[in-house]
Amino acid sequence: MKRHLLFAAFVLFSALGYANISLYSPDKQLNLTFKVSEDGEPVYALSYKNKPVIKESKMGFHIQWSTPLAHDFTIVDATQNSVDHTWETVWGENRFIRNHYNELVVKLKQKETNRILLITFRLFNDGLGFRYDFPMQDNLLHFIIQEEITQFNLTGDHTAFWLPGDYDTNEYPTTISKLSEINQLIDKVREEPLAAKSFTPNLAIQTPLLLKSDNGLYINIHEAALVNFAAMQLNVDDLNFQLSAHLVPDFRGNKVYAQTGDRSPWRTIIVSDDARDILASNLILNLNEPCKIEDFSWIKPMKYIGVWWEYFTGGGSSWSYTKHQGIRIGETDYSKLTPSGKHGATTENVKYHIDFAAKHGFDAVLVEGWNEGWEDNVAFVKDEIYNFTKPYPDFDVKKLRQYASEKGIVLIMHHETTSAVISYERQLDTAFRFMVTHGYPAVKTGYVGPIIPRSEHHDGQWMVNHYNRVIEKAAEYKIMVNSHESVRPTGLCRTYPNWLAAESARGTEFESFRGNHPNHTTILPFTRLVGGPMDYTPGIFEGDLSIYGSNPAKLSSTLVKQLALYVIMYSPLQMAADLPVNYEKHPDAFQFIKDVAVDWDTTCILEAEPGDFITIARKARGKDEWFIGSITDEHARETVISFSFLKPGKQYELTLYADGDNAHWQDNPKSYSVKNMKITSKTKLKQKIAAGGGMSARIR
Amino acid sequence: MKRHLLFAAFVLFSALGYANISLYSPDKQLNLTFKVSEDGEPVYALSYKNKPVIKESKMGFHIQWSTPLAHDFTIVDATQNSVDHTWETVWGENRFIRNHYNELVVKLKQKETNRILLITFRLFNDGLGFRYDFPMQDNLLHFIIQEEITQFNLTGDHTAFWLPGDYDTNEYPTTISKLSEINQLIDKVREEPLAAKSFTPNLAIQTPLLLKSDNGLYINIHEAALVNFAAMQLNVDDLNFQLSAHLVPDFRGNKVYAQTGDRSPWRTIIVSDDARDILASNLILNLNEPCKIEDFSWIKPMKYIGVWWEYFTGGGSSWSYTKHQGIRIGETDYSKLTPSGKHGATTENVKYHIDFAAKHGFDAVLVEGWNEGWEDNVAFVKDEIYNFTKPYPDFDVKKLRQYASEKGIVLIMHHETTSAVISYERQLDTAFRFMVTHGYPAVKTGYVGPIIPRSEHHDGQWMVNHYNRVIEKAAEYKIMVNSHESVRPTGLCRTYPNWLAAESARGTEFESFRGNHPNHTTILPFTRLVGGPMDYTPGIFEGDLSIYGSNPAKLSSTLVKQLALYVIMYSPLQMAADLPVNYEKHPDAFQFIKDVAVDWDTTCILEAEPGDFITIARKARGKDEWFIGSITDEHARETVISFSFLKPGKQYELTLYADGDNAHWQDNPKSYSVKNMKITSKTKLKQKIAAGGGMSARIR
Repeated sequence: MKRHLLFAAFVLFSALGYANISLYSPDKQLNLTFKVSEDGEPVYALSYKNKPVIKESKMGFHIQWSTPLAHDFTIVDATQNSVDHTWETVWGENRFIRNHYNELVVKLKQKETNRILLITFRLFNDGLGFRYDFPMQDNLLHFIIQEEITQFNLTGDHTAFWLPGDYDTNEYPTTISKLSEINQLIDKVREEPLAAKSFTPNLAIQTPLLLKSDNGLYINIHEAALVNFAAMQLNVDDLNFQLSAHLVPDFRGNKVYAQTGDRSPWRTIIVSDDARDILASNLILNLNEPCKIEDFSWIKPMKYIGVWWEYFTGGGSSWSYTKHQGIRIGETDYSKLTPSGKHGATTENVKYHIDFAAKHGFDAVLVEGWNEGWEDNVAFVKDEIYNFTKPYPDFDVKKLRQYASEKGIVLIMHHETTSAVISYERQLDTAFRFMVTHGYPAVKTGYVGPIIPRSEHHDGQWMVNHYNRVIEKAAEYKIMVNSHESVRPTGLCRTYPNWLAAESARGTEFESFRGNHPNHTTILPFTRLVGGPMDYTPGIFEGDLSIYGSNPAKLSSTLVKQLALYVIMYSPLQMAADLPVNYEKHPDAFQFIKDVAVDWDTTCILEAEPGDFITIARKARGKDEWFIGSITDEHARETVISFSFLKPGKQYELTLYADGDNAHWQDNPKSYSVKNMKITSKTKLKQKIAAGGGMSARIR
Repeated sequence: MKRHLLFAAFVLFSALGYANISLYSPDKQLNLTFKVSEDGEPVYALSYKNKPVIKESKMGFHIQWSTPLAHDFTIVDATQNSVDHTWETVWGENRFIRNHYNELVVKLKQKETNRILLITFRLFNDGLGFRYDFPMQDNLLHFIIQEEITQFNLTGDHTAFWLPGDYDTNEYPTTISKLSEINQLIDKVREEPLAAKSFTPNLAIQTPLLLKSDNGLYINIHEAALVNFAAMQLNVDDLNFQLSAHLVPDFRGNKVYAQTGDRSPWRTIIVSDDARDILASNLILNLNEPCKIEDFSWIKPMKYIGVWWEYFTGGGSSWSYTKHQGIRIGETDYSKLTPSGKHGATTENVKYHIDFAAKHGFDAVLVEGWNEGWEDNVAFVKDEIYNFTKPYPDFDVKKLRQYASEKGIVLIMHHETTSAVISYERQLDTAFRFMVTHGYPAVKTGYVGPIIPRSEHHDGQWMVNHYNRVIEKAAEYKIMVNSHESVRPTGLCRTYPNWLAAESARGTEFESFRGNHPNHTTILPFTRLVGGPMDYTPGIFEGDLSIYGSNPAKLSSTLVKQLALYVIMYSPLQMAADLPVNYEKHPDAFQFIKDVAVDWDTTCILEAEPGDFITIARKARGKDEWFIGSITDEHARETVISFSFLKPGKQYELTLYADGDNAHWQDNPKSYSVKNMKITSKTKLKQKIAAGGGMSARIR
């Protein structure tokens, strides 16, 4: 791993008391100030190009049965460092990432209690990260955080791209409104039917939150390295445009069970006046710990198909083997039950998918509904629903392993838990051992519905620890993980690159329920994907689900936009989600999905405006081959692409996948053209994109 | 296994509608009536010798988001059976137990919903058991029980031997009062400092509840076979003297997560006008399922000593190896930490205990504080406290195994969880495997403090399932279990005889905190022990703890009463709880502890009055040898023992352990005499028992 390391540490201050401390980003565009107020409250502020981004904002914590760690502080020490080095990714949007920041570490002492709190600020050219450390000390040991005080005082009534505050789901559509409009919109948004919802009692929204100020500043607020802490949502004070940390509680109202030696995640603020910088930012990855997996040779980006979409189309295929509900796992002999005849994960059907995957050069096949228990898959009252080592009678694990292996395909295991999480933890070791025994290198986990333990929410500390525990345990077994309905990522895929992807937002599956807005995928890269790869599962060619039965759902995208998503929605794990039969009808368009890379050397954000459009070019890792994706919202537009990112003087062949002239996501989504052309780094391409449409290209 | 089986089934009724159904006990002394009221409510009543015990009382359930299973019923079927057979115990107070009852099974149908509820009544000569079945049916599948309605309408203001309703502890002292007095006493009782307390919001008390009516009737209300259900406490209506089921909820207020196919535990009412019949009753064992462990040859009653009491005396010995709190298990190398020098579970100290155990014929040595994590043993906020497979650096597992084995002693493992139960469940398999690897045949489990998962209480459904899961899992590994701070037993030791004992009430350890009342052990056999053996840990010879340091605690019993407890407080697992050094000072009294059996062929309850005195004689299993124990409360008394239980015409040698003439629990507890005499079945022995004293005897 190539590293350029520059490390300069210098102590600036001592016994500063109430001094104002100032820190600049390496390029001097960002300025952080820190002080303690007259009441001894820690206060920070952030400006960009001499304009305030975050006005003076308080920091600290409320602690159960104790003095708040929030006032009465003096600064007893302050240290500044500069760091500049470059690290290599195991996989990613870029092979090398520069980690370049100036750091300020402030040591605070509370006068009456003598308790110590450290705050570390890291100021990058693209934003700020800060975190709290609770060092070991005599006057504090175990404690319960009742609330984090951290404020984000904004300068005005910015436009927000928001999800309503909710402890159990991040699958709402994004609403775009002024901060002052959230209050009047939120009740309606919360009507969205989702499997588990737990509204915040007050006005709050979720992170990653994108804001756009009236003067064109883009601000992303999120967190990095969420470990042993509750996820942070944001209270909204819509009179003062003040956001503040709202940690996800357990059912007792406690936020974090902590002890000294613990630290908070990083609170992150990415800032730019160019929207493309938000997408290009590596701030969150940089704030995470380096890879903890020594031998990561077994971690491989993958393209996969699955026995999956057929459960959503309305065609009648089912996860469960029988129609008997109320089965007791471990006490029931499934081979004696009558099959429903609708079961999807049969040996035959999986073989058919293996054949298709092998024929078209995929790496893997995901199979959902292979194991005992699916009959009660929405029985949220059950402690024990699934057996993760017992396949249904019509799913032959050994035979399929053999068959897949002969065809060069691996199978992806599925562990839906229906959020009966303790049951999953009990079985985790045996389940992973079962995977190793049967040659499964990857697992998709799922957390539909309310959590058991019933004191917990999807985004609370206990579940955060669970997701991380699964990742660490999976690493021990050399298993890659794709988690669904988990807490939204915070860059931990740097530390655990076996965490290939997460869903953790409204994915393609919703196209079969209530649909996604055409602007949905022009927002997600600014919000959800800031924390890490998303298993969005693109590639639906047949968007009219009424052909399968009575499902009236229609895809909110043209066919070509589906192709472009393989470039736009970055993930080292990409699914071709549609049924094989639909790909066979469009072999020329399907060719793009077959060709597109899933791991990259370089990424260039060419155009971007949240909610409107995004154009990205990426160079395949280790190849002189580029792929371009461009998408728009419900409005048609023209993209203008300059190929200046290519090597000068060299001629490339470009295969262009474009919406047809009359293509439209609503009426005419499947109109497209494929054509080849020669280009150089000096070529400019103007290309019309249909309403709800896209463009994609392969360049060799 | 010897069995006398008489089984007569006869259908009595069909399409009964609202008829009154009557059932008699085999001896006709008890009469049960059942009917549905005009509103279709199930109603039962119980009488004894033609006098009402339980007046007409409603039955049924409130169900979340659904019609209550409580009214609108008609009787669609009623069947009566008679059963009379005898079964052999794996261990117990008696080798053979007669199971003799008349049974009524009522099938109820709810008119509007068409839902079916079954109620089964079993009427024995010594009481009634009844339970609810929720059979599989079209109109009910998964459901949540919000409350059980079952009433126990008493005939008057009985005297109750009660613990206050509490979801997390059964370690309160027993209060004796009229039902009408509970309300004015309960707040004071609840001030008792205990590690985890969760009061019922209303006036409620716990089971096993003993009641005594003004006309001399003894009534014990409890439950049998508590499986996949919340424990039942009892609401108290002190105007109408009505008790009713109060199931222990989770933090959402839900009581039981159920599905059709499930059933409730048995609700039990043991009744007699002779207090001895309450102690002699096997009704609760009879209502439990037969032994599920096919090969139980590895299950062995045991007498043990332990590295235990030294932690309570105030002498300075400590469970933890270091003084560092806040250690992170799995991330810390204990061998690099400074030992406190006070650690009890050192290799040397355990060897000393093994030597003592071997010398005096004990089977086992319990060692507490052997594993990593004890530094945070009361850090109730921690998810992960203990490592159950990592001994402290000064505890050599292999060496001790070898040493114990050479001396014919086994070691008892200790798994204190501090109620971080999910952590324990995660480690359960590896912990039990570790025990098997290192030759531990038994484990003492502990659940001090509030439960994690934080939605749960000690006595709620989730924890009930946990305790049972541990027992079943332990059986797989051929491990015997002694659970502390678990839910009070309900006879499941019949089904899982590897559940040797539980604490689950105020044990001897409280003698080192706030003490036990001298009447305490004259009550427990009528209450707590009705459900199964208690690891009371008797045998404290040195009751003045001030000799060790600054602990002012004094034992509430004479030395001889401590001996008598080995007979009175039945358990197949009996500890000699005091320090070896104290036994060495009284070798003649200690001889009784060495001699006393822990498994019995026959038990004769000679005298009994709850709160006052108990005298029991038991015949050692497989030997012509008897042991007698007699205890009194704070009042001195004279016991008169007739030996008519002995074989006529044979002469026996009796060794009598008696309080000294001036013995008194407060001033002179260690005054005692040991003498031998010859007796026959015709001998009558009058023996004075000191205040807070006892008497014990061995008969050969």
